[in-house]
Order: sequence, then structure tokens, then C-alpha cells
Amino acid sequence: MFKNEMLPELSNRWKAIQKEMARQGAEGCLLAGNVNLFYVADRVFSGYFYLPVEGSPFFFVKRPVGLKGENVYYIRKPEQIAEILAEKGIALPKTMMLELDELSYNDITRLQSIFTPEQTFNATAVLRKVRTIKSAYEIGLLRHSGLLHAACYSEVPQLYKPGMTDIDFSIEIERLFRQKGALGHFRVFGQSMEIFMGSVIAGDNADSPSPYDFAMGGSGLHSSLPVGGNGTVLTPGTAIMVDMGGTFTGYISDMTRVFSVGKVAPLAYDAHQLALEIQSDIVAIAKPGVATADLYNMAIDKVKKHDLLPYFMGYSQQAGFIGHGIGIQINESPVLAPRSKEILTEGHIFALEPKFVIPGTGAVGVENTFVVNADGIEKLTVLNEEIVELPC
Amino acid sequence: MFKNEMLPELSNRWKAIQKEMARQGAEGCLLAGNVNLFYVADRVFSGYFYLPVEGSPFFFVKRPVGLKGENVYYIRKPEQIAEILAEKGIALPKTMMLELDELSYNDITRLQSIFTPEQTFNATAVLRKVRTIKSAYEIGLLRHSGLLHAACYSEVPQLYKPGMTDIDFSIEIERLFRQKGALGHFRVFGQSMEIFMGSVIAGDNADSPSPYDFAMGGSGLHSSLPVGGNGTVLTPGTAIMVDMGGTFTGYISDMTRVFSVGKVAPLAYDAHQLALEIQSDIVAIAKPGVATADLYNMAIDKVKKHDLLPYFMGYSQQAGFIGHGIGIQINESPVLAPRSKEILTEGHIFALEPKFVIPGTGAVGVENTFVVNADGIEKLTVLNEEIVELPC
Repeated sequence: MFKNEMLPELSNRWKAIQKEMARQGAEGCLLAGNVNLFYVADRVFSGYFYLPVEGSPFFFVKRPVGLKGENVYYIRKPEQIAEILAEKGIALPKTMMLELDELSYNDITRLQSIFTPEQTFNATAVLRKVRTIKSAYEIGLLRHSGLLHAACYSEVPQLYKPGMTDIDFSIEIERLFRQKGALGHFRVFGQSMEIFMGSVIAGDNADSPSPYDFAMGGSGLHSSLPVGGNGTVLTPGTAIMVDMGGTFTGYISDMTRVFSVGKVAPLAYDAHQLALEIQSDIVAIAKPGVATADLYNMAIDKVKKHDLLPYFMGYSQQAGFIGHGIGIQINESPVLAPRSKEILTEGHIFALEPKFVIPGTGAVGVENTFVVNADGIEKLTVLNEEIVELPC
Repeated sequence: MFKNEMLPELSNRWKAIQKEMARQGAEGCLLAGNVNLFYVADRVFSGYFYLPVEGSPFFFVKRPVGLKGENVYYIRKPEQIAEILAEKGIALPKTMMLELDELSYNDITRLQSIFTPEQTFNATAVLRKVRTIKSAYEIGLLRHSGLLHAACYSEVPQLYKPGMTDIDFSIEIERLFRQKGALGHFRVFGQSMEIFMGSVIAGDNADSPSPYDFAMGGSGLHSSLPVGGNGTVLTPGTAIMVDMGGTFTGYISDMTRVFSVGKVAPLAYDAHQLALEIQSDIVAIAKPGVATADLYNMAIDKVKKHDLLPYFMGYSQQAGFIGHGIGIQINESPVLAPRSKEILTEGHIFALEPKFVIPGTGAVGVENTFVVNADGIEKLTVLNEEIVELPC
């Protein structure tokens, strides 16, 4: 089912879930979504993971054939889970956790009709909470991803050729990411946000509002996927924001750098420097115990002081956050937003992305992935942060 | 909200949904999933589409800003939908359709608490049924996609260099698809099947069973996405199956071609020819009124006659279908499977993919996209179907 050396890591994750189960009074937890299965089993499979509040988990597998290990059972349908537990003399849980924000209504009601729990708790909320605190192993994966991510970005200028569109440029960057090992597939929590690998947004396309809750928009190439590059020609004076997902390890690093065709407008450089200062300010004070809302508000205060609020986090449509937790998905906890109640905690990993949209120029600013250590935050995506000038 | 010229097309779609609503007795239908929103509004947005059983639909938009049109209302939360309908003197539906197989349990129960319908029907099933019959406009999009898909595949041999791995080859093919306009993002019905753009599977990796209900497996590069190419070096005697999604138009064409490094084993050529014969047999008899199960069974009979059943649709793990409907998603109706009750109907579009896995060689066979016309089926992905030999 999983490699032996993963057992201590996975056991810790199971125990963290069991602790939440005990706290809420759930006797069993059944998971079926790919993201949570990857978290608890170190691999995606088709089937279910069942965790009693005490003891070892069970793996009920539909596909692929050939998985082996303790408590691995093959099933064709979820009804067999109850039968197998009964055969082993294990009582069905009277209270259970299911992924109420991830599985469909019909999937959940089918599982409820099988297990007939007196009470159902939300496994989604619990798993998202537990997943927020990354282990040393997970931090290692994101550290590795950050190195690869930065290595890719360091080669981006060599991919540029005058006369390219944003999409031409994006295609070469996508290829570079894949060559360095990116899996490509980009996981987002919630059914409504879709994106392909990331985005390369240039000029006034940066001001095209997106239907998704991403920091930057872009109208995209097609109304079926209205986000990102739209075929804008990269002409002199254009800022190009490259914001690709770092999908190298199953854990997504997030990083943005800005390139310009020749020079851009002075306001764009000013805004970019302000974004870097906001980042520095946050790096100076962020540590365990700090409220993420305070970091957001500090950024807003600084932007207001510089009279750049109309451009901050978008122009026609503005995003309501400056950072977001990342992990298996791009939008985990904590969120750096005004009404967030979250407090930075050791093991949090988040992307910080102060950005501005300057009409007539494009988007500027920076994004890096940070880990919260015992006494501060550490950048995992280290690379020059100035606007990199490309030849006209 | 949408381009004026789309109104007749969209009106027909709304009427088809209303017809099903009337048949089932649903007074209202509320949709929120991206796939269905794209179908009813010709664009993805964040929000809801509300269709009464008679009359015009309403568009309740959260994002992006700036959408205009008849019955377009901006909201922050779904509770406002009921308020707006009440203000307009429109009674809330006593019976309604919601996407029970697509929205999460919590999303559905929130909507039910707002509208308090006496009865909830499954909009997912209705939309999937309605979407099965493609209009001339949709067939046009898939026809266009098929042309681009075939144009890409015709250039694939030029991308090959001896010594490549399956992933190296895949990266060049992905780039070609993007250069020809592929959006990249690949939509699959159901939360559990994930893939990046498609797959390039070589040699014995074709026999790696996948957790997904795809025709072919491949172990992938990582346990978080265990499907497709895995780094297999393309050595002489290897068959390479290229099965990329045609994501050019919001409607996905599906097409597979096989390449070989030098010659492959005689059994592989035999199996490949049998796949082509199965395709020919099906083309000869498929037309409106024919049961898809009969097509599947005809294929199985032929494979049995040639003693190739152990290799058909997989070796260690076999897929239980030889074709599947396609449209906005890769897995629509009808399915060509033994227990399918579906009957071919004019306007169906499906991928037919008889394939074999030959241990020691790889996967062979063919896949094409077909549209069901009044008197037969027509191939939309036309290109040489023999195994294309690449230099050693």
C-alpha cells in the first residue's frame, strides 16, 4: 500500500486525525477524496480509507489491482466495507466523519445509508486543519519543490523571444517546468476553481477579472477556462507576471516573478518596490503566534500610505487576501485576509503574494513560499525578486 | 453574459432541460458547477444559473465583475438568490433540481436550507442526459477539435529523438498541442479521476494498473498522480501509445495513435490489426437505434475468436468498456460497455478505443472520435491508423 519507510510519517498523520476525532466524538472516519487519500496513504487509489478513533486504519481498494499491506481489502462497492468490518467483529461507528465539503451529496448520502451513523461530522474541515501543520517530511518536499521552482524561473529569461505572445511564452515555461519534473496537474480545493499549470499574464490582461478566487485574473484563451494568458503580444513597456504552480512533489510550491519588455512605467517600478517592502515587513515580524489578519492589515496600511490602494491585488476586481496556505492543494490554510482568525503556527506553509495591477503596464509584485519555523518564517523560493528586463 | 449569436443555441439547451424538468415535475433548476454553467451560459463564472420550468433563466454572479445581460444579478452568497426572486414576485420552487452528483454535500444542504424544496431531483443526471445529444454547433466544435487533434498527431513523429523517455516525448507533444491552441485543462466527471493533458505510455508501463477508470494505465511519475508515463526509456521494440486530450474548444476530442521504436513483436502487430478490424466492424453497423452493449459484445466476440482476450483493454487490469461519450468532459454518455442500456442516437459523440496491452512490447490499438449521424457514424479524427515506426 505504501513504502515501509513512510509508516512513521503516516502514523503521525493518522494520530493527528484520531486526536480530532476523539475531541469531536467521532468513532470512525471514512475518506475517499484523492487529496485526503494521498495524505493518509501516500498514494492515490480508488477506494476508501477507514480510520477508527483508536487503532489501525483500513484500506478498501477498488483500483488498482495488486496493492498489498496490513488491512488492505479489495472491494467493488462501499457496501462491502460494512460487511468486512462486521466479519472482523468491528462495530460500525455510531458517529462518523465524512468529507462533507468534498464528496458529492449523493456519495455522502449513500455512505450514510450504509453506515447509518447517528451523527456525521465534517472530515473535510478536520483534514484541512490537520494538513495545515506540515511535518518535517512535508516541509522537505516543499523545500525541494521550491528549489526546482526557483531553478525553473532562473531560466525563464532564456525562453523569451521578441514578438512572442503571453501564451507562446507560457508554453515554453510549461515545457521547462515539465522538463524539471513538474507533474503539471494542479490541485485546488473546492469544485469551482480551475487552472492549467499556472498563469502568465501580460499588459492589460492583468486587469481582466477572473471568476476564480485567485489573486490575479486574466481572461484566458476561451470562455470555458477564463483565466490567465489570452494571446497578448509582449510589446515594449509590458510587464509579464509569471505565476506557475510548482507541482514537483505532490505538494505545490507557489512563486511569482515579473519580467518586462524593455522598461515599464515608473508607477510599476514604485509598486513593485512597495510589494518587496511589504514582503520584508512581513518577514520581519511573522512568527508563531502572529495573527494572519494583522499581516494583511499591515500590508494594507502601507499600501494606503503610498496611495496605491486602487492597484493593490487587482484594479477592476481586487482579491481579498495577500497570501494563502499551500500543500497538496494550492489553497490551504492559513489565509492572510482581513477577517481571518488564524494564527501563524510552526509548520504552516504559505504563499505571500503582494501584487499590483497597473493599467497600461500589467501586474507587478512578488510571490514566495514560506515555512513558519520556531522563531520566524523562511523563504523556500529564493531567487532575484527585481523586475527582470527582457530585450525589446 | 454571453454573445448574442449564442442565444438560439443556449435557448435550445434551456428548453431541453425544461422539458426534462416538466417530465419529472421540477419547478426550478439551480446549477453551480463549472461544466454545467459553461453548457447553459457559454462561459464559466462563479455563481448560479436558475431556470424555472417555464420562461427565461436567471444568472446570479459572484465573479467576475462586469457581466451584463438580461436577468443578470450580482450576489455575494446564495441566500440572496431567494431574496431577489422574491423581490421580483417569483415564487420559490416547491420542487427543484440540484447537481447532486457534482456539488458537495454541504453545498447541496445549504441550497436546500435556502429554498426548502419539498422534493429535490438530480440535475446532474438530467444535464448529463441533455448534454449527450450534441447540437450542430457542438458537433462543429468537436469537428474542429478533431481536425486540430489530427494535425498535432501528424507532427508527432518529428518530435521523437532516439534515447528519449516517454516523459521527454510527452513534453514535446504537450507543447505541440498547446502551440496548436489546446487549453490543456482536462475535465473529467466525478471527483476521483485526475490526469494531466493525456498520456504517453510505453513498453511494460502500459501494464501498470491505474486507480482510475481509464482504458489504459501507466504508473505515472509520482504516487500522487499514478497514471501515464513513468520515465520509461524508448528502446527498440517498444510500442508507444499516445492518447492526448483534444482540449481546443471547451469540448474534448479523444484520439490515440501508436508509434514504435523500430519493429515490435509480431503479436503486437496482430493485435493492432484486430483493433482496426473491430473499429471497421463497428463503423459498418453503428447507427441510431443500435445498442452500445451490442457493439461492445461484438468486439469481445471477435477478440475471443482471435484468442487475444487476455490482452484486450489491459492485461493485469482490464477496463470494462471500449468507448465512451465525450463532450465538455471526457467521460459522458453513452458508454460502450456490456451492461450499458444505451442506444445510439443521432447527435451522440463518442470515442471508440479498442486497445491491447502486449507484455514486453506495450499498448497497441486505436482511438477515434465519432459522431452519430442519421444513417451511421462519422470519424472526426482522421489520420493514418497504422503503427508509425520511429527510427531506433
